[in-house]
Formats: sequence, structure tokens, C-alpha cells
Amino acid sequence: MDAARLGSAGGPTAVADEHQSRVDAVLARFFSVTRRRAEPLGAEYVRLWDRLEANTVGGKRFRPRMVLAAYQALGGLDLQAAACIGAAFELLHTALIVHDDVIDHDFVRRGAPNIAGSYRDAARAAGAPDAVAEHRGLSASVIAGDLALFNAYRFVDRSGVGDEMRARLLEVMDDALFASAAGELIDVDFAWMPELPGVDEILGMERLKTAVYSFECPLQAGAILAGAPDETITTLAEFGRDLGIAYQVVDDLLGVFGQESETGKTVVGDLREGKRTVLIAYASALEGWHEVAPLFGDPDLTEEGAERLRRHLEAVGARGFAEGLARYYANRALSRLLEPHVPVALRTELHPIADAVLARRA
Amino acid sequence: MDAARLGSAGGPTAVADEHQSRVDAVLARFFSVTRRRAEPLGAEYVRLWDRLEANTVGGKRFRPRMVLAAYQALGGLDLQAAACIGAAFELLHTALIVHDDVIDHDFVRRGAPNIAGSYRDAARAAGAPDAVAEHRGLSASVIAGDLALFNAYRFVDRSGVGDEMRARLLEVMDDALFASAAGELIDVDFAWMPELPGVDEILGMERLKTAVYSFECPLQAGAILAGAPDETITTLAEFGRDLGIAYQVVDDLLGVFGQESETGKTVVGDLREGKRTVLIAYASALEGWHEVAPLFGDPDLTEEGAERLRRHLEAVGARGFAEGLARYYANRALSRLLEPHVPVALRTELHPIADAVLARRA
Repeated sequence: MDAARLGSAGGPTAVADEHQSRVDAVLARFFSVTRRRAEPLGAEYVRLWDRLEANTVGGKRFRPRMVLAAYQALGGLDLQAAACIGAAFELLHTALIVHDDVIDHDFVRRGAPNIAGSYRDAARAAGAPDAVAEHRGLSASVIAGDLALFNAYRFVDRSGVGDEMRARLLEVMDDALFASAAGELIDVDFAWMPELPGVDEILGMERLKTAVYSFECPLQAGAILAGAPDETITTLAEFGRDLGIAYQVVDDLLGVFGQESETGKTVVGDLREGKRTVLIAYASALEGWHEVAPLFGDPDLTEEGAERLRRHLEAVGARGFAEGLARYYANRALSRLLEPHVPVALRTELHPIADAVLARRA
Repeated sequence: MDAARLGSAGGPTAVADEHQSRVDAVLARFFSVTRRRAEPLGAEYVRLWDRLEANTVGGKRFRPRMVLAAYQALGGLDLQAAACIGAAFELLHTALIVHDDVIDHDFVRRGAPNIAGSYRDAARAAGAPDAVAEHRGLSASVIAGDLALFNAYRFVDRSGVGDEMRARLLEVMDDALFASAAGELIDVDFAWMPELPGVDEILGMERLKTAVYSFECPLQAGAILAGAPDETITTLAEFGRDLGIAYQVVDDLLGVFGQESETGKTVVGDLREGKRTVLIAYASALEGWHEVAPLFGDPDLTEEGAERLRRHLEAVGARGFAEGLARYYANRALSRLLEPHVPVALRTELHPIADAVLARRA
């Protein structure tokens, strides 16, 4: 999701930008200190930290934004602590996508080489054969992800909050990783099991793998840090859960029907890889699937083949179903905010975020 | 290293065993609670935790032993906190070997399937082709290592120590991972760079990759937790650094000249994989290396070929050199303990550990 877009969709952009830059500053300082610390251990190690920073800075700061949105709307004043918690979620995100790319053998993210890609390319340039260069890239990514993950935790510790607060925030971070690991494991198994999973299974996996750590937990953490009452924290978690599911369904849609110029990734990719999505779960349960089934997951899928699959997904109603599902969850998320114990400021802050999830094009 | 052997080499076995079982209890409780927490997320996730536990329990509790040896000899009394710090280092070790196995594409550790191996085997049994089954195994290992790493950190947090102490212990854990990641990165590059590294480079890599987190940091953590003065902590770190290097050199020797029945792994493996060790660094710098060089790293290396390489390493003095190196570092480690500020109890506790490092056969 484009953070700038979220801002322009109605959020308090100037304030949000100010907070954003606070998170940026926290991360920049961390990487700067760490780079100096890495110097005695070799130039290659410094380069690994540089690449990790590039992969973190390239992000959209979406999770810190969730933390700060909840924190600020609930009256939190210690913006430095909130920025640290935001940075913690940002590094957790980096760790998870870097390791997800290892699992998927991906060397590119959003059109540019990721950590694995840049290490692979450097080894290639130094004369390593392809397989060796790819292995080097993936190995460097395993290491880089570990460093990001460990330091995600440290950011909670460094936020300077008291013992009890720290324990609660660590529980939330723990929940985030715990869910994401479970979702990733299910996703790995979806990829090789011959039966295609159903819609419920896809939604459950997507929620665990991404929505919990991207929406539920950052919002919860912001509310906890702001000292919000339990019912507000619970409502925010529910809002985050529903909105996160909507976000993932929109992701599935963009991966097939998006504009390549906007999403920055090929819209043939998901179909070629055989990615299990809500669209496929829906269509594969209907008559006629067998006619297009051989195209799905075909490593040689052409643009024409993809177009045929897309038309099929439209014709059987899979696209309409997924669009309806995204709307349903986004609206359910918004309806949570109407509960009387939700402060108006929080509603005002989060409403445009939900709108932007539905409106997003990339 | 065999912990029982270390005990029998002169350590206070009964006390050590009691502490060992305290660490076991801490880990067992953690895995039991976590397994129940994983249940709602699916049977496969519970299985991942089971396998992670099996891969942790199968260990030799070597790092917790370092923590407890230093802690106890320096008069520490909060054995529960020390057990938590020991468990933290044990989980860090699990995380690092699980991810090291991903990098090395290893499916076996000490003769039994590791996490990757058991997931691969289960997928094969379910009919997945070899490449798919292996990929599933490595993917599960990426996830499992992340969980172990994150929870290593949490054990420091849960040890119940005060803020300042926690901050110092976290620094040590951070140092441990920071060094190990640097060492792993260098090791990855050694494997594909055409030039063979020199003895200094090998020792530097081995120190970073393994010795720091296995010896230096656990001993430091135990001393810090016991409230030892700075000079004692520094001496322990130096002792750990030297002993850790000795340990790694012995490891290199056992990988080529060990008894398969004792080490539990093939003594052809290191030569077949082309593992960069002190032995090879020494021999490859001498005349005559070109005669055996084609055997080194040959994936089809036979026992006869390995025997020829072994004879070469003996004949040019590589074996004798490595044995001398291990003795040198172990003795230098011991000489650190003669400094007047080292309490006698600490010397008594650590001396047999150094002896055992030199005497070990597995």
C-alpha cells in the first residue's frame, strides 16, 4: 500500500508525515550506529547492513503508521517511544519479507533487486555460476532477516517504557510473529498440496501470515502504549483483523487484475506461480475450472493464457466475489469504530485508512 | 562437545547436572505452554514446535553450562534467573544451527533428520517430488529458526532481572548474534570464492561464527549476572575467546581425522564438501597441494580419495600444526585464569572444561 496515498485519502497528512519522519530518524540512527559497529568485522558485513537498511527504508512505513495512528488518536504524548515501537514493527516486517523471499526464491521486490538479488548479482559479476550466485543471495538473506528480527525486539526494549508496559508490548510483538509463522507454514503447505484450499482456508492463512502483524498488532500496540482501556484495545484489534483481511483480498485482486504500471509487479506472476488466492479458491470450486486449470501454475504461462484465466475468473464471478468480500470486511472493520467507547478522534483517524484500503491500486 | 564428557573430565558433575536439569525444566515449560498456544493455529504448527523442541532438547546444553559455570563460581545465587539466561543461549544456538542448515542445505544433524529433514521426509511420504519435499523442509526450517531466535530474546526478558541488568545481558546476546551473523556471512563467501582463505582468515571466521556465541558471550553473561567486577568479565571473555578458537580447531581436526563411531558424522563429509578449515588453509599454502587439490571438494570423493588427502595433510604437517594450534589457544585460555583477580573457584570450575576441549573425541 502506498503510504502517501493513504495520507492523501483524507488522513491528517502533515501530522502523519511528521511522525513518519520520527520513525525514519529512529531507524536511520540505528543503522548508522550499527554500520560503525560492523566496520571492524569487514566491508562485506557493512554492506549487508547497508542492504538491510535499503530494504527497510524502501518500505512504506505502513505498520509504524498504524502504531502512531492509534497512539496519537488515543491521546499518547510520548512520540519518541511510539516511534521506537513503530520502528520495531517496521523491522519485524523487513525480517518477515526477507525470509519470505528466501522461501519463495524471490530475487526481486517491487521491481528492484531485494537483498538476495543484490548478493546474487554481485556474485555473478565476480564470476560465480548462476546456482552458486543464487545460493549466496539466499544465504545472505537468511542472515539479514535474522538480524532484522532480533533488532525488532530490541527496539521495544529501547523504547524506554516501564517494565509492565514493556512486557505487554512484547506480548503483542510475540503474538505478531507467532501468527505470522503459523500463516507462513500453512502457505508453504498450500503451495505443494495437490488439493486447492477453500476460501475460508485462504482467508485464515492470509490473516495469520500478514494481517495480524501488519494491522491487528500495530494498532493494539499503539493503543496499549497510549494507556487505552481494554475494550478499546479489543475493538482496535477487531478493526485491524477485518481491515487486514480486506487488504489481503485486495492484494489478491491486484495480483491478477492490477495495472502493472501501478503495482510495480507483473500481473501474470501470481497466476504463473500458481499462487493460492481467494479468486482461485472461489473459481476452482465451480464447474468449468478444469477447462482453465492447466493454465494455473504453468511456469510457461503467456500473457494470452493469463488473459484467458482472467476472463474465466470474471465470468464465473470470482472477481466480483472477491471485490464483495473486500468491501464486506472493510465495512465490518468500520462498523467496529461506531461502538460508543471508540473516541471520535480514533474514528476520524482510521476511517480514511479503511477507505484507502478499498481504493488502492498498488 | 559431549556435556557428560566435560563433566567426567573433572567438573563438579552432580552440581552441574542439577543446573542442567533446571535449564531443561525452563525449556520444557516454555515448549509445553507454547504447544498449547499453537493448538488453535493447526496441527501442523504444533508439529513445528514439537520438532523445534526435539532439535533443542537433542543438544548438549553446552552454552547454558558456560553461563552456569561462570555464574556459580562467581557466587551467583539466583539459579532460576541463570537458568533462563542459559535457556536463552540454548535457543539462540538452536536458531543459528537451524538456519545454518538452511544455508548448507543439510537435512541431517548428528545422524538424525533435522527440522528440514523431518519436514522433507513427511512431504515425500505424502507423495511430493524430491525437489518440492526438500523445499518444504528448508522453508519450515526458516520459520522454525525465526521462532527460536525471537524467543531466545524473550528468555532474557523473562529472567526477572532488573532493568539495568537486563540491558547489559541483552547487549551480550546482541553481541553474540552480531558476531555470528558476520561469521556466517564470511563462511558463505569462503565457500564460493575461488581462492582458499589463509589460517588467520579461517580462525577469524570460526571465532565470529561460533566461538563468540558459544563461549565468550555465555561466560560473560554468567559473570555479569553474578555481579562480577569488570576485570573478571573481561578475563572471562578472553578465556572464552581463546578456548572457543581451540574448540573450533579441534572441530576441524575431528571432521577429518575423527572416528565416525564417536563423532556421529562421516569423516569424509568435510573433505567432500570442500569445507574451508585450518587444515586446508595450512596445506594449500604449501608445495604439493596441487597434487591433491582435485580431491578436495569433489562431490564424488571416495573413502580412498579421502584417505589420500588425510595422508597428505599429515605428511605436510597440517595435522600437527592444527593440533599445536588447539593446544596453544587452550593453554593461552588457561593462562588467563592465573591472573590474580580470578577467584580460585572460577579457575577450578573452568580448568577441566579447557582440558576436555583438547581431549574431546566427538
